[in-house]
Amino acid sequence: MARYKLIIEYDGAPFRGWQIQADQVSVQGALTAAVERLTGEKVLVQGAGRTDAGVHARGQVAHVDLAREWPTDTVRDALNAHLRPDPVAVLSAERVGDDFNARMSAVKRHYLYRIINRRADLTLDAGHAWRIPRPLDVDAMHEAAQRLVGKHDFTTFRSTECQAKSPVKTLDELNVVRDGEHVHVITSARSFLHNQVRSMVGSLAAVGDGKWTADDLSAALAARDRTACGQVAPPDGLYLMRVDYP
Amino acid sequence: MARYKLIIEYDGAPFRGWQIQADQVSVQGALTAAVERLTGEKVLVQGAGRTDAGVHARGQVAHVDLAREWPTDTVRDALNAHLRPDPVAVLSAERVGDDFNARMSAVKRHYLYRIINRRADLTLDAGHAWRIPRPLDVDAMHEAAQRLVGKHDFTTFRSTECQAKSPVKTLDELNVVRDGEHVHVITSARSFLHNQVRSMVGSLAAVGDGKWTADDLSAALAARDRTACGQVAPPDGLYLMRVDYP
Repeated sequence: MARYKLIIEYDGAPFRGWQIQADQVSVQGALTAAVERLTGEKVLVQGAGRTDAGVHARGQVAHVDLAREWPTDTVRDALNAHLRPDPVAVLSAERVGDDFNARMSAVKRHYLYRIINRRADLTLDAGHAWRIPRPLDVDAMHEAAQRLVGKHDFTTFRSTECQAKSPVKTLDELNVVRDGEHVHVITSARSFLHNQVRSMVGSLAAVGDGKWTADDLSAALAARDRTACGQVAPPDGLYLMRVDYP
Repeated sequence: MARYKLIIEYDGAPFRGWQIQADQVSVQGALTAAVERLTGEKVLVQGAGRTDAGVHARGQVAHVDLAREWPTDTVRDALNAHLRPDPVAVLSAERVGDDFNARMSAVKRHYLYRIINRRADLTLDAGHAWRIPRPLDVDAMHEAAQRLVGKHDFTTFRSTECQAKSPVKTLDELNVVRDGEHVHVITSARSFLHNQVRSMVGSLAAVGDGKWTADDLSAALAARDRTACGQVAPPDGLYLMRVDYP
């Protein structure tokens, strides 16, 4: 048996999310089918992050076990050939030891949330960002965001469907930066709760809009109550950018 | 009569190009129809650059004459409402004098050509860049590109359908830069011939591939012969970024 680490890019729009589900198109399903077409083996491709429906990835990581050893370039190129025309691509394949597990071995996950802050509809970026027409106060968003950094009970910012045992997570970084009409929310943590990034971004947008103060955000966090959360940002703007391993 | 200058963004994929044509979808046709829905007037929206089928714009400029004066924010927002769901958006509308002509008054046009230099298929960037799988020597491309800067007869790099009176143009800038897997060709000139940017990029790709030397590029230019041109780069990677006025 040979284990491979794959770095994967995808456009989440046509998928019901990462996770394989009966009668639904999923990224994991597309990859698992591509492996079967290549090797004839039915073997699950296991990912680092279970991205939701419509969420994108520039650097999802997965591992897969193949019965025999293949050259890594062949694994990458052959999987890409079998993935067409689905918008999923294997950027690289690397031979790793049996102790490597894409989900369990990950020490940090990096997400980007793209907001385009303008009146005009999106054209080239449609489906790939959240358009907010009202001018956002990005300094206020960044300042308020720091209230969420560190170890907290993130129940407010967690989907009611979240299956994690504990709502307590340590958020390493939550930065909000503007470049012209582009507003980027950049965040990293060992792991995130279900819908956590989109929930945090939705509440930060309320701060940027002047509807919430930083104290309102702190109060929402302290409430540990899902109903205290602002709107959940749409999946279009969210990208799993990178996963770090020791 | 009130003349408006519009800055326009579009995804070129679904269009047969900028120019209005009978029984074809065009960007100019979409804009002209939106104006008619807003004001009831049949009046042509005139653009600075007649981009080809599939070519995109981040900063196309056009002018249009309306019978009465409208607030500029209304022109922008109402045209955008009438343009939906076409991937064309008016980024800004500005009241200008009758002497402003989007095409004739332009003093410089700026184009970007996006190459993604990697083995894996495009997902999020599909239709928005040219993927070249073989590693490109970007330094060689940039150095060779300087042979095309300045005043030359660009017959080699001009479509046989080009209607410009003279093939002599002055190219102000042609830079090739790499940022990871992204290779950007950035070019500006007062005006370009039909297919000139895509023809230059296709020949520069031959240099990056090691098939052509800088001397081969100079010889192709000197030949003043369309058949001396390398391949024409696909429209997917080309963006009209900005148009300058005095």
